Amino acid sequence: MTVTIIGIGLIGGSMALALKEKGFANKVIGVDANPDHCTKAMELGLVDEIRGLEEAVLAADLIVLAIPIDRAETLLPAILNMVNRQVVMDVGSTKKIICESAATSANRGRFVATHPMWGTEYSGPEAAVKGAFEDKATVICSREDSNADAVALVEKVYGLLGMHLMYMNADDHDVRVAYVSHISHITSFALANTVLEKEKEEDTIFELASGGFESTVRLAKSNPAMWVPIFMQNRENVLDVLNEHIAQLRKFKACLEKENYEYLEELIEKANGIKRILK
Amino acid sequence: MTVTIIGIGLIGGSMALALKEKGFANKVIGVDANPDHCTKAMELGLVDEIRGLEEAVLAADLIVLAIPIDRAETLLPAILNMVNRQVVMDVGSTKKIICESAATSANRGRFVATHPMWGTEYSGPEAAVKGAFEDKATVICSREDSNADAVALVEKVYGLLGMHLMYMNADDHDVRVAYVSHISHITSFALANTVLEKEKEEDTIFELASGGFESTVRLAKSNPAMWVPIFMQNRENVLDVLNEHIAQLRKFKACLEKENYEYLEELIEKANGIKRILK
Repeated sequence: MTVTIIGIGLIGGSMALALKEKGFANKVIGVDANPDHCTKAMELGLVDEIRGLEEAVLAADLIVLAIPIDRAETLLPAILNMVNRQVVMDVGSTKKIICESAATSANRGRFVATHPMWGTEYSGPEAAVKGAFEDKATVICSREDSNADAVALVEKVYGLLGMHLMYMNADDHDVRVAYVSHISHITSFALANTVLEKEKEEDTIFELASGGFESTVRLAKSNPAMWVPIFMQNRENVLDVLNEHIAQLRKFKACLEKENYEYLEELIEKANGIKRILK
Repeated sequence: MTVTIIGIGLIGGSMALALKEKGFANKVIGVDANPDHCTKAMELGLVDEIRGLEEAVLAADLIVLAIPIDRAETLLPAILNMVNRQVVMDVGSTKKIICESAATSANRGRFVATHPMWGTEYSGPEAAVKGAFEDKATVICSREDSNADAVALVEKVYGLLGMHLMYMNADDHDVRVAYVSHISHITSFALANTVLEKEKEEDTIFELASGGFESTVRLAKSNPAMWVPIFMQNRENVLDVLNEHIAQLRKFKACLEKENYEYLEELIEKANGIKRILK
């Protein structure tokens, strides 16, 4: 099968590696607006060849759209205009707007809206890794709007990647990822800025940074070209969660201000409840 | 050398393992107010024997105080009253109050105030691990208040553990850890509570949780018996940092409310500056 990957970065590149390794793709064609990414993706063996968009779409059996979601939203209708038998899947972090962008296309059925729940704070072809996606969840949204054969092919792809499938509508997806992904990134960006603000005065702070700091702040390395569009497209849900998060932080602040350590202990015990969910 | 560990949990237990492995301690005596911890520490081979406090202090060459900082503050003067030739070191997360609690003791010189910058979100003897501390920083505070031989012994211990030494006064230490450790914990506790608040309505949220969420929220599993006293003792510094962190989060909130995506991009680019510090 020939697979075209549009956007040969962290996700697209990792998917290319996995689909070749599993024998699913005997040819991977790469498309990327950034010439450096094209060169690098060839050097790293992520793709077999680089082609222009239309040629790459027409030559493929499966097209994976793995570019930032604002550009995916614009490009998807054009791609759907080119396809007939091909299957097009996206891998973006929001689902409502991409589904809307496909809704009026005559070829809507060829598109499957998906979101594999895997990523790192790095980006570009060099960030692609082998064995990504394994044992993680992936979401397929609005399955009923896609043709059965298209859904079946995408399910096969995610099965080969070792992911477990979840089905939901785009609205529910976007609320949930605001909680389990988008807010973590905002927290991490804000935490980095909190410390960097102080660094001007205290330049040895960082020698002290240990594992705890590193794990809460590592997402702050994430790429703005990916994340600004996510926060734009999921603005209302992210604002809801951010307001709740600031309210929760204010409870900790009030405990300290009022020296109410009993309530502080209660808040921490409540937070420990996360053990029920994370091993 | 005989080493007495008071508090055989994550830090005390891991230190016991390391000091035996390196051949520094030919006997480790454990003291713990929790009988289950004593039993478990013997079962796990963390300590060679369990004794009462006074007996264990008198039998030791080096005493490591590894209990929550509120109890360490109370116990340290009593321990210093028992010692003569022995060296006493603590490993607590704040340094100002423990130094104050030792200040008036006739044996102040036998005490070395330290803080190894390593930990996990787990606690108790079962949380002890081999190879802890390696390649991390450790702080020695107010070295000038300790006898030279006591400092030299503690430096030897941390050298064996593979830690690199930093020296600072207790006030500076407490400001810095508010930034690189304490705020990360509050953020993580508050993030857990944000999501747990929502879970009542959305019980499938967690199936989606991926690596990013897990890393920002893992510290929320941390033990309140350890953390409430830290926030109490470092209240003013933590409040300063928490106020700054809430202010930083409000900038993200304002960007989303006003749909000011240029400034949002700036904030994220600024946060990316954390790459200069964390690899």
